[in-house]
Amino acid sequence: MSVTHPAGFRAAGITAGLKASGKPDLALVVNDGPQHTAAAVFTSNRVEAAPVTWSRQVLADARVDAVILNSGGANACTGHQGFQDTHRTAEKVAELLGLSAGDIAVCSTGLIGELLPMDLLLAGCESAAAALSASGGADAATAIMTTDTVSKQALYEADGWSVGGMAKGAGMLAPGLATMLVVLTTDAVADSEDLAAALRAATSRTFDRVDSDGCMSTNDTVIALASGASGIPVPGHGLERALTEVCADLALQLVRDAEGAAHDIRIDIVSAATEAEALEVGRAIARSNLFKCAIFGRDPNWGRILAAVGTTSAAFDPTALDVAINGVTVCRASGVGDDRNLVDLSARDVHIVVHLNAGEAAATIWTNDLTHDYVHENSAYST
Amino acid sequence: MSVTHPAGFRAAGITAGLKASGKPDLALVVNDGPQHTAAAVFTSNRVEAAPVTWSRQVLADARVDAVILNSGGANACTGHQGFQDTHRTAEKVAELLGLSAGDIAVCSTGLIGELLPMDLLLAGCESAAAALSASGGADAATAIMTTDTVSKQALYEADGWSVGGMAKGAGMLAPGLATMLVVLTTDAVADSEDLAAALRAATSRTFDRVDSDGCMSTNDTVIALASGASGIPVPGHGLERALTEVCADLALQLVRDAEGAAHDIRIDIVSAATEAEALEVGRAIARSNLFKCAIFGRDPNWGRILAAVGTTSAAFDPTALDVAINGVTVCRASGVGDDRNLVDLSARDVHIVVHLNAGEAAATIWTNDLTHDYVHENSAYST
Repeated sequence: MSVTHPAGFRAAGITAGLKASGKPDLALVVNDGPQHTAAAVFTSNRVEAAPVTWSRQVLADARVDAVILNSGGANACTGHQGFQDTHRTAEKVAELLGLSAGDIAVCSTGLIGELLPMDLLLAGCESAAAALSASGGADAATAIMTTDTVSKQALYEADGWSVGGMAKGAGMLAPGLATMLVVLTTDAVADSEDLAAALRAATSRTFDRVDSDGCMSTNDTVIALASGASGIPVPGHGLERALTEVCADLALQLVRDAEGAAHDIRIDIVSAATEAEALEVGRAIARSNLFKCAIFGRDPNWGRILAAVGTTSAAFDPTALDVAINGVTVCRASGVGDDRNLVDLSARDVHIVVHLNAGEAAATIWTNDLTHDYVHENSAYST
Repeated sequence: MSVTHPAGFRAAGITAGLKASGKPDLALVVNDGPQHTAAAVFTSNRVEAAPVTWSRQVLADARVDAVILNSGGANACTGHQGFQDTHRTAEKVAELLGLSAGDIAVCSTGLIGELLPMDLLLAGCESAAAALSASGGADAATAIMTTDTVSKQALYEADGWSVGGMAKGAGMLAPGLATMLVVLTTDAVADSEDLAAALRAATSRTFDRVDSDGCMSTNDTVIALASGASGIPVPGHGLERALTEVCADLALQLVRDAEGAAHDIRIDIVSAATEAEALEVGRAIARSNLFKCAIFGRDPNWGRILAAVGTTSAAFDPTALDVAINGVTVCRASGVGDDRNLVDLSARDVHIVVHLNAGEAAATIWTNDLTHDYVHENSAYST
């Protein structure tokens, strides 16, 4: 159930003292091989954190031997000093493990615009290296939490090989509520092209379709590591299916733990002309604060859904839209449908289906409602 | 100080009974000429309300004799019946005033997806026509309020002619927090091309640059009426300047009365390569819920500003951004600047300046913070 379930991996999660709360804040995941194949997807935010800049370079040769991840500070908007701190962290881990710094990926999450306390972090690296174990996955998943209320792990088991994963945050690659960090491990034998293609396919249909609050982090990172320790070569589609399943599992865990959310909202856009247009419409709805407030208030306010759909350039007839909320078709042909009082929004799960009646394509976006707790958490976070 | 200040206009605001609260809900503005030149700008939302569809047709010949405006119901997503109701409303007003229905513009605001109570509305038209007076502007401004806490009026006085205006809502043409309705009147002599050009120029630099919550209404409408009653022809630039001043005044009144807001935020994007890019960056910041929550929490969290800037395609060096919050340059060269504890966010007015250091262009966007009251108002509005 963790990144250490697949053979060839060790992990640790310890307390370096970066967080005022004294909770665990430093995780280390090591790939002991025999292979060290890696692939990654990073935030598309142009203002990217130092560890993202560093890890992009590390991934250039598709080899990663270890990933060091800290919570308690994003090391973003920290200039040259921030990049040097990331570099020093990688060198420290490399020195402790007898590896090359150029094979150590670094991830950070926390407040933007503050330098990390490097004395604490480097001492923490020593503790983490000493704590590495083949059963350390759960500790690692705990150490990367920030505003998460639960740690997130997932597992896909096949015949003789597996994929494990851990995640933190309530966000996504583009956009993200808070930084999302994900480490995926597999003992399958995979070459770097297959791993990269499988990861891109998996993230594009999972994390990329979570749109919790429309904000994009400077630090989002998903790294996949393949050790080959099972000795079993997995064809591209098998690996893609496994990674997609683990990513979908983790993505839903992120949605269910989004900051301050009271409802998890699945938005299905169907009968669209193209999948891209279905996604555009889904995101427009997911980013409407008025819609999100209505769901919080258990108000099946379908007019706000139509108003959001109307802002897009997708193909549809503005007089021919249908909308169902939790199974009740409250809007037919862009007008009043079944009785909105039949809609029950008391449960956490909400299911919106929008029929564009313009084609055969479909897509799903996941989001959350906009609540008092969201405002509270995000107005008090750094103070 | 109202739409009846310029010569040639009468107005009324009465209670038709459309609102459960029993507050005034129907306004009528009549242009008695001698000219009846008109121009308008409508929502760009493709899902547009019946009165918007109707009024677009009315404006096609650039002549409007009267505008009837109701609160208590948006008449949006109401299908053929909704359009027929708008048509009947225009016919009723035309009949009462001895005019042609094709010269009567209609505006509605309130909940989407409900038919208007036509018996009450048509009876209200009779009361409104009977109440018309050359001093009825203030009543009209009151009757179009929905969640507004104060009525909004503005006046520009020149030598022998003037421009008056009224507005409701806390929104904008694209996008809008809630429906924005604006009626502008002038007794200047203006031909339709000059009036249309002046109105487009005025709205593009005022209402279009208010981005309170990123949501676009189905009903937004700005209508300008010119009576020519002063007998004074005003050259295009003079009219544009006057309309811009009145629109800017009304736009700021909308910002200051935005639903649930605790701060009014002015975002200046300077040293941009182009004005369009400055606007793109300003809107990205104005739509970041994390930024808006931080301002509510009086937290000068400049990292969230940089994260929003980084999502845009504007020209800038991601390592060379400067940000000032209320006069304190908290971010220099995309890193830590002056002490963030020097920033005082206790006042309602907040001033953000972002230096892209990429050119000579600049633009200003106005927005509000994201507060508990916003969530409360918008989760409870229709229930």
